[in-house]
Amino acid sequence: MRQVNVGIVGLGNIGGGTLTILAENAEQIELKLGFPLRVRAVCDLLIETKTIPEALGPVLKTGDWRELVAHPEVDIVVELVGGTTVASEIIEAAIARKKSVVTANKELMGLRGAEICERAIAAGANLAMEASVAGGIPIHAVLREGISGDRVVAIYGILNGTSNYILTEMEKHGSTLETVLGEAQRLGYAEANPSADIDGFDARSKLAILSALAFGEKITPSDIFTEGIRRIAPIDFQYAHQLGHTIRLLCAARQTHEGLILSVRPALIPTSTILASVQSSYNAVWVKGQYGEDTFYYGRGAGPRPTGVAVVSDLMRVAREIVSGSPERVSPFAHQRLGEYKPIPVTRQKRAYYLRFRVVDRPGIISTLAGILAAKHISLEAVLQLPCENKHDLPFVITLEPSTEEAVREAVEEMSRLDFLIDPPLALPMEPPL
Amino acid sequence: MRQVNVGIVGLGNIGGGTLTILAENAEQIELKLGFPLRVRAVCDLLIETKTIPEALGPVLKTGDWRELVAHPEVDIVVELVGGTTVASEIIEAAIARKKSVVTANKELMGLRGAEICERAIAAGANLAMEASVAGGIPIHAVLREGISGDRVVAIYGILNGTSNYILTEMEKHGSTLETVLGEAQRLGYAEANPSADIDGFDARSKLAILSALAFGEKITPSDIFTEGIRRIAPIDFQYAHQLGHTIRLLCAARQTHEGLILSVRPALIPTSTILASVQSSYNAVWVKGQYGEDTFYYGRGAGPRPTGVAVVSDLMRVAREIVSGSPERVSPFAHQRLGEYKPIPVTRQKRAYYLRFRVVDRPGIISTLAGILAAKHISLEAVLQLPCENKHDLPFVITLEPSTEEAVREAVEEMSRLDFLIDPPLALPMEPPL
Repeated sequence: MRQVNVGIVGLGNIGGGTLTILAENAEQIELKLGFPLRVRAVCDLLIETKTIPEALGPVLKTGDWRELVAHPEVDIVVELVGGTTVASEIIEAAIARKKSVVTANKELMGLRGAEICERAIAAGANLAMEASVAGGIPIHAVLREGISGDRVVAIYGILNGTSNYILTEMEKHGSTLETVLGEAQRLGYAEANPSADIDGFDARSKLAILSALAFGEKITPSDIFTEGIRRIAPIDFQYAHQLGHTIRLLCAARQTHEGLILSVRPALIPTSTILASVQSSYNAVWVKGQYGEDTFYYGRGAGPRPTGVAVVSDLMRVAREIVSGSPERVSPFAHQRLGEYKPIPVTRQKRAYYLRFRVVDRPGIISTLAGILAAKHISLEAVLQLPCENKHDLPFVITLEPSTEEAVREAVEEMSRLDFLIDPPLALPMEPPL
Repeated sequence: MRQVNVGIVGLGNIGGGTLTILAENAEQIELKLGFPLRVRAVCDLLIETKTIPEALGPVLKTGDWRELVAHPEVDIVVELVGGTTVASEIIEAAIARKKSVVTANKELMGLRGAEICERAIAAGANLAMEASVAGGIPIHAVLREGISGDRVVAIYGILNGTSNYILTEMEKHGSTLETVLGEAQRLGYAEANPSADIDGFDARSKLAILSALAFGEKITPSDIFTEGIRRIAPIDFQYAHQLGHTIRLLCAARQTHEGLILSVRPALIPTSTILASVQSSYNAVWVKGQYGEDTFYYGRGAGPRPTGVAVVSDLMRVAREIVSGSPERVSPFAHQRLGEYKPIPVTRQKRAYYLRFRVVDRPGIISTLAGILAAKHISLEAVLQLPCENKHDLPFVITLEPSTEEAVREAVEEMSRLDFLIDPPLALPMEPPL
């Protein structure tokens, strides 16, 4: 039987992990496929500094991705450059040559996945992106094949390992976000510029991809309400625990009668749910199906080898399809008729909320806040106050009965002008039991 | 584009769930596939008592499976009869006609999956069996595609919902197995003859299928050391909790230097692991990969609709392959060279053990037991005794440092002859942190 040749552009962490697996696990890969998968060419801007495993045999090394993409023996192009500029050129050049593409690029796929996928299908090529979401968790295979017969009703995910690491460390040690982040940066777990992770943008790209896949709808990051974890303080975990909850940066996509509600934001989730047990940099995805009910997927969210497994598994699937001559014919994105799963603003649905205040103590505070809530027809559920000596920076919490985001936002905005508040109230949704 | 026609044999619970999904979700299935999936024929011994959803349109109803399999318009045969006799005839007749088969039959696939799969491949047909293991969890898709690039090192599973329901109810309420089982039988959760569930045979078939898939080795149920949950008592949960553990019927398949160790047996697992959080009739599978590290999959283990999702998802994959003309060419079972993952007896590996005794109290008991252990070179880790008034039936526990199953078995056998014991000691392995 023939062999399938691979060209890899970008030899950073994921590229390195991918090469290791392709070299070390070559025999098992060939036994599973029935034919060999060979690395024919690799490309990196710093190609002369890169070591290629000897077991791969002779490999073309180049600093010019155009040479790799154009190479007549390269059947599949692996794009591991990241970002939306050069990566997009590489992928488009490969598709133009009717070559299949495997990518780990969440940013580009989150932004333009549906469009690029349609272009690949038109060219008779494959576009595989298991590695773009939740590294070691094969959630693409699950949604595309494993539970394809189901109708997904909701997805809840923990999709950013860095922010989950920060939150679970804060929870465990009572440290501030700044302390944990600083340490994570020193250890190389977090970027020097942590914005993509802690402001929710990385998770947003991943949710855009996952929800497009799950609901078959065109979703772009701008459809997703996004809020980061910067304002979470150690005291919030204490109050959350009092309420039987914990706090996670939760990616949510829920089908409602009116449309699809999409959000990435810190939320209180019950400690009794399996999602609350996701610690450190692990990722997880909870899928609710209309027929299959709840399924839950958990694993490493990043790392050269877990993400490398996703790249190699994609390569194996695409290679099988090349050998059997069967390109995909329906886009995993955007197969729906527009409408049923149209994204709608997060503001319409009612949920319980957690409001945390920091105040300079004086009489009449609760009454003032309760008055603002009452004027918006928001019902107060409970007032919680843990013992605190500092009357000049006193934290306490009000939980609300199910209210719309819109009403809560208006109330928070009005409250923010009150002079006894040290900073604006922190409002977090309390997610229903999953 | 063409359509693919399905014939379903066996309209019990799973058959009913499958028909519901194919009827209700037809539009989304067609959008995902790009062509319709049509139910052309159904067969059941009691066909006249079965209602077929009207939305399916005209469907041939027959009591004779041979008519269905032979029907020229039936492209895929779904076998939902169960058991190893008629089911095997149905599947073999379909394959002989080069028709692909979707089955939920764990017993037959556990026993003869590799052989039947090879026959299907030789005929250019597909054999899909997602529904045979862990109903709603798409673990076949995960192992076959999602993480196919990885090298599986170990699998731990909770694969029998009934026994997990019984154990977690015993844990929660302190009830005996007989009480919980009786209640489960009254509610229809457990069979009148519960042996397949509580003696581990059902789980054993599933582990045979999963480990064959994961390790690519021919595995038969007789390779798997199997022990049921009949001897677990409420007191065992109390002692397990004292040790920071709980008890589950654990399916385990672990690669060692000497070969593959396979077992289905009640085991102590640390409460801190995510596997311990699997409650009630849910199923879960924990996979350890050499490159992708830990991944974990959780969902409904049974039920007409979750299992129906598995059947329908298989139908969609097989239908896609029929339309694109690409049969599988490598058996998901038995793709390895024999040897590396050869099953070996469970007796060789060292693990910590939990030994629970029921004795008529008198002096010298611990010394006698410790003497027997010492003679087998087994080191005692701790002795635990919860307060108990009944000196004529006094339970206590000894935990052992890592020892071989063989040595522990010999010690237990020798101990069983002691006259102060009310029944033979219960020996459970303590699994390492997963």
